[in-house]
Amino acid sequence: MNEFIYDVPVKVYFGENQLKHLGEELKKFGTRVLMTYGGGSIKKIGLYDKVVSEIKNSGLELYELSGIEPNPKISSVREGAKICKEKNIDVLLAVGGGSTIDATKGIGAGAKVDFDPWLFYTGEEKIEDGLPIVCILTNSATGSEMNVNSVVSNPETNDKFGTKGLVSRPKVSFLDPTVTYSVNAYHTACGAADIISHIFEVYFNLNPDLYMLDTVMEGLIKTVVKFAPIAIKDPTNYEARANLMWASTWALNGFIRGGKQGGWSCHPIEHELSAFYDITHGLGLAIVTPRWMKYCLSEKTAWRYRGIGENVFGLDKNLSDMEMAEKTISKMEEFLFKTLNLQSTLTEIGIDETHFEIMAKKACNFKAINGFIKLEPSDVEKILKDCL
Amino acid sequence: MNEFIYDVPVKVYFGENQLKHLGEELKKFGTRVLMTYGGGSIKKIGLYDKVVSEIKNSGLELYELSGIEPNPKISSVREGAKICKEKNIDVLLAVGGGSTIDATKGIGAGAKVDFDPWLFYTGEEKIEDGLPIVCILTNSATGSEMNVNSVVSNPETNDKFGTKGLVSRPKVSFLDPTVTYSVNAYHTACGAADIISHIFEVYFNLNPDLYMLDTVMEGLIKTVVKFAPIAIKDPTNYEARANLMWASTWALNGFIRGGKQGGWSCHPIEHELSAFYDITHGLGLAIVTPRWMKYCLSEKTAWRYRGIGENVFGLDKNLSDMEMAEKTISKMEEFLFKTLNLQSTLTEIGIDETHFEIMAKKACNFKAINGFIKLEPSDVEKILKDCL
Repeated sequence: MNEFIYDVPVKVYFGENQLKHLGEELKKFGTRVLMTYGGGSIKKIGLYDKVVSEIKNSGLELYELSGIEPNPKISSVREGAKICKEKNIDVLLAVGGGSTIDATKGIGAGAKVDFDPWLFYTGEEKIEDGLPIVCILTNSATGSEMNVNSVVSNPETNDKFGTKGLVSRPKVSFLDPTVTYSVNAYHTACGAADIISHIFEVYFNLNPDLYMLDTVMEGLIKTVVKFAPIAIKDPTNYEARANLMWASTWALNGFIRGGKQGGWSCHPIEHELSAFYDITHGLGLAIVTPRWMKYCLSEKTAWRYRGIGENVFGLDKNLSDMEMAEKTISKMEEFLFKTLNLQSTLTEIGIDETHFEIMAKKACNFKAINGFIKLEPSDVEKILKDCL
Repeated sequence: MNEFIYDVPVKVYFGENQLKHLGEELKKFGTRVLMTYGGGSIKKIGLYDKVVSEIKNSGLELYELSGIEPNPKISSVREGAKICKEKNIDVLLAVGGGSTIDATKGIGAGAKVDFDPWLFYTGEEKIEDGLPIVCILTNSATGSEMNVNSVVSNPETNDKFGTKGLVSRPKVSFLDPTVTYSVNAYHTACGAADIISHIFEVYFNLNPDLYMLDTVMEGLIKTVVKFAPIAIKDPTNYEARANLMWASTWALNGFIRGGKQGGWSCHPIEHELSAFYDITHGLGLAIVTPRWMKYCLSEKTAWRYRGIGENVFGLDKNLSDMEMAEKTISKMEEFLFKTLNLQSTLTEIGIDETHFEIMAKKACNFKAINGFIKLEPSDVEKILKDCL
């Protein structure tokens, strides 16, 4: 218990007007830069031009890979790795949200090997080496800008798998809240749901760990609950965007986990939804989370909901554990489906139970999820049905 | 506002049984190790033997500098720097609390220059280079194990000055809560007061910054308020020691500061107390802090006390700002002087107003402290008198 290594050597430039440091940071790793990005949004907001001009003014050589998808596909990773090898790239510059950064981690690792990078995601190979990565974050959600994780989809096999590589952790990340002003209400809401889920996956755990980290997690959730609605109503509110951005990073950079053991629950379930139906990750999490919270609730687990109820939602401390847990779940539903206005059922987004059986098995990796409570495929199937 | 660089690349091994990694970490920096420590306490608890055996088993060459004082003196820094040069030391291993680690930072920087390292502390020279430092922490208080700060005293001039060096930040720190089991009630209490003061120096600030960081700061204080009394009553309570240890590190590693501007207040005032009377830093802070909180309280500042009152002490949300602030100060006094049982006045520890005038001037660096509120030497003198 409480035995862990904390090692998060990412340099973060936070705030406006930090891009002037981009050239000097990239140069530390070489001269040949592959910039990766998604659709045209970074062009629309003028970020693309700023970045290109910083890179060119620094005398660096720029290559590009655009079109990285939401729920990024292994095909993009393969393509990026190929470019890195052909062009002898020194450093990757991911300009985007979690999808672009996750794919770029796969590209960086793929550039260093002769086999198909998909094998990193199936678990057949481990990431041992990779090109250095610099990020310019454009969406507050995944925390990818400061962590070792990469999640990529393979539509051919309906798989969405994650991998980790210590070398995949970005070296430098630029977090400018004003860049997220253009994120629309729906994606801001999905991002908020994703951040909360990252915290819940650690918080809801029956293994004892550091109370201090509980207080941090409650603070991060309180921050998201406070500022996501503000960012939705007032997209250019700097304070709201800044709080969401820094909270999203710290929700998943390794800090809050401490020495806690135990697997994640909602993420593997949601990954099956995105893998089969290519839905937005945060939306899937929003739909699954309250059902999972209900499914896990028992006399044995009820105490664990208290901190969120009391310290995030300000519920009455005198409630019994069970009442507190139930009210906390109601508050979460209200927040996700009323305040954030996210769709609340799978039915609403056109998903029925056709694939639930295989999805449940895959979510459990054909065994079980050892998370907050142990979930067998039959449990996951029930949770999915509760989401209809 | 909110513009900052976060860059804290310290690797932390947290928990018991991590010392087995000591050799491999030291070896990354060379073979000739200078171990620095204070009095005999690390021998008494068996830590010295464990460390020496790890180092010898790793085939490293060990040199030692013992006798580093609480409120470490520049003479120790000079002596250490001399040893580093003579013995061609590759890496420093500080085994101790904040005093030992702070002095070791001075030693590391002093080893690289031909001038007197005291010039780093007077501000006449800047730290540009330094030997790598590895720490084994034995007391939860200063946060030195993860930050760039070093504070050293010069009894000849009654000065206690701080300096900073990016290269002085430890590369690796070992945090084993069980090592602090032997810290007595008084020093545990002083450590708690020090941690709280580090947070207050940032928290009590009228410049707007990230709410998210406020929630983290409130959580850290809540952690100290909860666990310091437990550690005092039950010194081998792992949970209490672990929470205090990790909280102390995060209270002063740069994270909570974010982009906040503004100087510190209680620390420069207390540094004069330790410089003139060599008292324990945390005790001085405990005595000064509530008086400073009262002195700063006005209609303009009262709102800033609310978060501590509500979220740390659970005070009634319906109180007015002024009532909330006053009750928060009372709660702090109660915590420091009753729960932690620290002495509550300077008079009790044999300090009178003899040197207050010059101490106040020096605390203000002969100008003013631009902290929570601006303090001129006359203000500091009043605060000191309130401490009698």
